[in-house]
Amino acid sequence: MAALSSGVEMSMREVVTVALGERSYPIVIGAGVLDECGERLAAVCRPGRCALVTNPVVARLYAEQLKESLMGSGFDPIQIEIADGERYKTLDSVSHIYDVLLEAKLDRKAPLLALGGGVIGDLTGFAAATYLRGVPFVQVPTTLLAQVDSSVGGKTGVNHPLGKNLIGAFHQPVLVLSDSATLRTLPRRELVAGLVEVIKYGVILDAALFARIEEDLDALLALDERVLGAVIRRCCELKAEVVGADEREADYRAILNFGHTLGHGIESETQYSRYLHGEAVSIGMSFAAHFSASRGYCPPAVADRVVRLLRRLGAPTEVPTDLQARSLQAALAGDKKAAGGQVKFVFMEGLGRTRFEMVSAREIAERAVAGAAEH
Amino acid sequence: MAALSSGVEMSMREVVTVALGERSYPIVIGAGVLDECGERLAAVCRPGRCALVTNPVVARLYAEQLKESLMGSGFDPIQIEIADGERYKTLDSVSHIYDVLLEAKLDRKAPLLALGGGVIGDLTGFAAATYLRGVPFVQVPTTLLAQVDSSVGGKTGVNHPLGKNLIGAFHQPVLVLSDSATLRTLPRRELVAGLVEVIKYGVILDAALFARIEEDLDALLALDERVLGAVIRRCCELKAEVVGADEREADYRAILNFGHTLGHGIESETQYSRYLHGEAVSIGMSFAAHFSASRGYCPPAVADRVVRLLRRLGAPTEVPTDLQARSLQAALAGDKKAAGGQVKFVFMEGLGRTRFEMVSAREIAERAVAGAAEH
Repeated sequence: MAALSSGVEMSMREVVTVALGERSYPIVIGAGVLDECGERLAAVCRPGRCALVTNPVVARLYAEQLKESLMGSGFDPIQIEIADGERYKTLDSVSHIYDVLLEAKLDRKAPLLALGGGVIGDLTGFAAATYLRGVPFVQVPTTLLAQVDSSVGGKTGVNHPLGKNLIGAFHQPVLVLSDSATLRTLPRRELVAGLVEVIKYGVILDAALFARIEEDLDALLALDERVLGAVIRRCCELKAEVVGADEREADYRAILNFGHTLGHGIESETQYSRYLHGEAVSIGMSFAAHFSASRGYCPPAVADRVVRLLRRLGAPTEVPTDLQARSLQAALAGDKKAAGGQVKFVFMEGLGRTRFEMVSAREIAERAVAGAAEH
Repeated sequence: MAALSSGVEMSMREVVTVALGERSYPIVIGAGVLDECGERLAAVCRPGRCALVTNPVVARLYAEQLKESLMGSGFDPIQIEIADGERYKTLDSVSHIYDVLLEAKLDRKAPLLALGGGVIGDLTGFAAATYLRGVPFVQVPTTLLAQVDSSVGGKTGVNHPLGKNLIGAFHQPVLVLSDSATLRTLPRRELVAGLVEVIKYGVILDAALFARIEEDLDALLALDERVLGAVIRRCCELKAEVVGADEREADYRAILNFGHTLGHGIESETQYSRYLHGEAVSIGMSFAAHFSASRGYCPPAVADRVVRLLRRLGAPTEVPTDLQARSLQAALAGDKKAAGGQVKFVFMEGLGRTRFEMVSAREIAERAVAGAAEH
């Protein structure tokens, strides 16, 4: 818990430290933490010029509030807007950010702040990783998905016509501010998609968290602050532990991809337009749960419990029936984690336990499409 | 010294290790080392698919030789050509590399090899830093400048219409192979430009190296193997020490920018078309030497000795008379190392000794242009 010495009202703050030696950084979580941005940033960066990258939707809601906080602590922000949506997570958008930063003559001390969801965070992070060979980066995630997942861990990047996140870099932020109050303006569909990743942490790492979500699902969907902050903090803690142990995904970090192998394939096959990322992951997690049970790695009842919770949440759990196995297979084999047509697949062994196996892209694709046909 | 156990003739090999913990890597120097590429790469990367990035000029001379060596050790290279010249060191060229790599479905285990000078090395390195968030990178520099400078230290990047190397990343290679025999096909002008950087190492770090170059300049220009390999090795050693002490240029690494502040400005103001990088740096070093003497940091006779050696080499030492102070000032202030119109300028205090001072871009620009007008 942290309380600032300024006029800011004493508030509940959850703080998680991502331990990466001299590149360690805090994640500060709580309702209204946006108003503390200037003060908290001043603790790690000398006040001066900075750039705020956001999209028009989020800008309208929170840009003024954030800039007011920044200016109150002596920062002088410029604002860069990227059109809203995954299809703008491209090298062209990053190139646009470079152009504006260079025109404005921002130097390598000036931090870049990402205000928005995962798209804004990922592409701003990539710009921060590569502008002048790296400038300080601050994440101010405004979606649940970004707060529990993409803002933690330093993965940045953009999509390519041939696949998601194929271009990118590892670049850790100096500060993450997750204002749970911003979730009040989040469309319910995105809230649900974010909770899918929350459930994922329970499945792969923390049976108690999974049970808590089963218990408190309604409170979470109602954005009850008493549950929300603690759950976001727990997810960040879990991800921070994984990232601290294996920053560059040599091995262990790959457990975070539970549900993502097929999830990414489905997103790609449906042109990133039918499902939100979390929705596609929900289908991928349901598939991975059943696949784990069918290989005897986990009891069918436990797999069912995972799928049941995703259904209660209102997330999709069925592979769409119009997917083509061959095309899906090609997409899976083209994943950047694939090698030689084999994919490192994350299976569950029960709640909070996983195992990796190399599985052929073909087996996953055929099993997924066959499963879809059964419904 | 290393000799391989294969059929390769026993040869003199100079080996320098860049010490960066688990990211340490060897620089292997010697005539004919190109033929050992496959074998040496197999020691650090599992043989398989890989990509060779080069330009048409270098490709015609050395691509087949390199690919033969790679295939001889079980690698399966694809070849990507980028048009020759600094003006192709752009994000567009990197984007083209991404496209080819993705079309060819190269995975994150497949190394990228840069065969060519600094342009090819810098942009291939940036592609390697960002393709699938980072793949193994091998430098096979074929210019003297690349062999003593750009291939060592992990700086990668591309130019932007507003300046050089403004977009980039730090990404260390896994292996550097500097074949001194490739310098036989290097145009004399490029050889001279490369020797400017060799002289720079003497000035900033090693008075004995400087004296040796004074002594052996003719042998170096004649590519006498007895001198050449040892001098390249010494430069790599010096750069490796600096990089090992300060990989990301927090501070000390900036001494390598001796002569580069004005050099970059001149390159920019002459549209990167009038001077080779080393030529512009030669002008910048001459300026920095005189500037150091005028501030009383080093004896005028020592500054003169530096300028005299650059002249003997045949490199330009005078600021061109058509430069405009205001425009040059803007270019200097726009350098990514500048902050608030101030530039961290590297002065010499004698041979092998330097000091930093913050100097206004305006003072540098006015002094440079005034100096040019005197001639």
